[in-house]
Amino acid sequence: MVDVEVMERNITRMAAAAGTGGFALRPHAKAHKCLEIADRQIGAGAVGLTVATVAEAEVFARGGATDLFIAYPLWVDDGKARRLRRLAETAVLRVGADSVEGVQRLGRAVRGAARPVEVVVEVDSGHHRTGVLPADAAAVGKAAADAGFDVAGVFTFPGHGYGCDPHARENAAREEELALGEAVEALKAVGLSARVVSGGSTPTAGRWRPGAVNELRPGVYVFNDATQLAIGTCTSTDLALYAIATVVSVPATGRFVLDVGSKVLGSDRSPWVTGHGYLPAFPGASLTSLSEHHATVVLPEGMKAPSLGTVVAVVPNHVCAPVNLVDELVIVQGDQVVDRWAVAARGANT
Amino acid sequence: MVDVEVMERNITRMAAAAGTGGFALRPHAKAHKCLEIADRQIGAGAVGLTVATVAEAEVFARGGATDLFIAYPLWVDDGKARRLRRLAETAVLRVGADSVEGVQRLGRAVRGAARPVEVVVEVDSGHHRTGVLPADAAAVGKAAADAGFDVAGVFTFPGHGYGCDPHARENAAREEELALGEAVEALKAVGLSARVVSGGSTPTAGRWRPGAVNELRPGVYVFNDATQLAIGTCTSTDLALYAIATVVSVPATGRFVLDVGSKVLGSDRSPWVTGHGYLPAFPGASLTSLSEHHATVVLPEGMKAPSLGTVVAVVPNHVCAPVNLVDELVIVQGDQVVDRWAVAARGANT
Repeated sequence: MVDVEVMERNITRMAAAAGTGGFALRPHAKAHKCLEIADRQIGAGAVGLTVATVAEAEVFARGGATDLFIAYPLWVDDGKARRLRRLAETAVLRVGADSVEGVQRLGRAVRGAARPVEVVVEVDSGHHRTGVLPADAAAVGKAAADAGFDVAGVFTFPGHGYGCDPHARENAAREEELALGEAVEALKAVGLSARVVSGGSTPTAGRWRPGAVNELRPGVYVFNDATQLAIGTCTSTDLALYAIATVVSVPATGRFVLDVGSKVLGSDRSPWVTGHGYLPAFPGASLTSLSEHHATVVLPEGMKAPSLGTVVAVVPNHVCAPVNLVDELVIVQGDQVVDRWAVAARGANT
Repeated sequence: MVDVEVMERNITRMAAAAGTGGFALRPHAKAHKCLEIADRQIGAGAVGLTVATVAEAEVFARGGATDLFIAYPLWVDDGKARRLRRLAETAVLRVGADSVEGVQRLGRAVRGAARPVEVVVEVDSGHHRTGVLPADAAAVGKAAADAGFDVAGVFTFPGHGYGCDPHARENAAREEELALGEAVEALKAVGLSARVVSGGSTPTAGRWRPGAVNELRPGVYVFNDATQLAIGTCTSTDLALYAIATVVSVPATGRFVLDVGSKVLGSDRSPWVTGHGYLPAFPGASLTSLSEHHATVVLPEGMKAPSLGTVVAVVPNHVCAPVNLVDELVIVQGDQVVDRWAVAARGANT
């Protein structure tokens, strides 16, 4: 269930913050996978969308998106090559790269595309997932230019910016600036000028010094979740997505079971959350155990368990998982169901 | 990807073990959600299927299943009541119950169904999820009989039988026997005779003393997974389901990144596994970190990282999650893709 008013406020607020900071906003659509939400983000001023896979790009291109960044170091086979060329017929396409071989292969794949494909070099700013060290951006950028690409710039994902300590976010934002800045210099040294300097993420968004970063790619901010609440990047009034569950069992005093589990909420559990989800109606309660269709809630001493059949809203730990588990979102305004939106890119992994 | 020969051997072996032990086999279909696999289980001698939700029951009933056990304490609203009555037109239907109110409500819901619905009382044998204490089976059974149900017996799920210590499985199997036995006696005291005495689960399956349990409901055994491997209920030659991934980044010596993540593997991580999945081709490697589309693998000292583009099979921690994330399974025999099976009950949560 999506509270559409909260969602729209989240969209507007991030767009305004990006505008004030002078950042281009390119939200990551993997967090919602919905055409209706992408339309609202673009309507609020986003310059385009970020996606994680070719299949996600295809869904949003069919939905009308004309500016798509696949923020992933693709390893392109013949099938993906054809799909990328087809995407380039209707959209400005930007693709990530973090290796010389990968970008050379990508170059052969998109040769003759309807529209030149942009490459941005992925830089590791401390998350240690994909991405080259800043100095190595030169080699990848050079290979991309040699392969005929428009080398648009650099990007990073500051996953290490998650944490309860606000300094973690500030430090990660500093590391983003530094790594991206060094990578821009490395590109300059091989004659490439970076017009795109792109950073994360809901926690670090907009925490950069003026001029250091010029694009941001937050995803989760649309809905927020129990992890964002735990690390303090949102308040409970900013939570827009809930799983709606029913009490099916009250096996003991102080304990009850809801008919929602990992097949709806997902099993993501960051180190900062205290359980498997957050229950706004039961402050102090802990969702201690999650099976596929059972959520066991333990209440604080003295709190009465709800009766069988009670409907309870659960905020998931990480919204990207539940969105990808269901076929549609139920859209609610106030007390009314006003629409149902298909999760158009659900399962679009390839 | 499913190795169909391994899967069929797993099915045959469990059916043979059930036959030898004198147990009726009623496999839990939530682990595969595939009509083709249910057909093979029934063909090998299963008496019927176990499911977790009304929606799963509907999918398998449409696929031809005629004997379905919804092993869940349903709280039935008008919509579910209609759906249950429709199911009873084509299938023998058995439903779990663990409360007097729940079973009374269920009774009103299925009044006038085409075929009498069976109730089995859920008993807590130590997992402390749903289920009544054994002695309280009398009250639920009595309420079910008063509501007009055929009270078929009792069931339990021994989720606490998971663990690396083989004693954990043996102890859980003893606790199942004890709890179910006490519940059977409790029913007898109110004039109800239990013909169904139904236990778990892939770890405890068949570990009961003769006569203590007469039905088993394992699910994961069809494919097995990294958790079953870790706790020793299967060997690596019994693993039938793999995610097929490609190396997209080799950011440092001894570390590489695969293009598979939590949106394919799921995020389940039992206490007994060492990472987010098992890589048969890289013994000693650890899948240390999982994002939605990235799996970071750290190699043991001295082991060489595979080159970019290498295809790598990953065994998920818990098969029930990945099966529910994808729309189809690719069926492989030897080196050949021989079929694609729809995950017909994917997302069937309600």
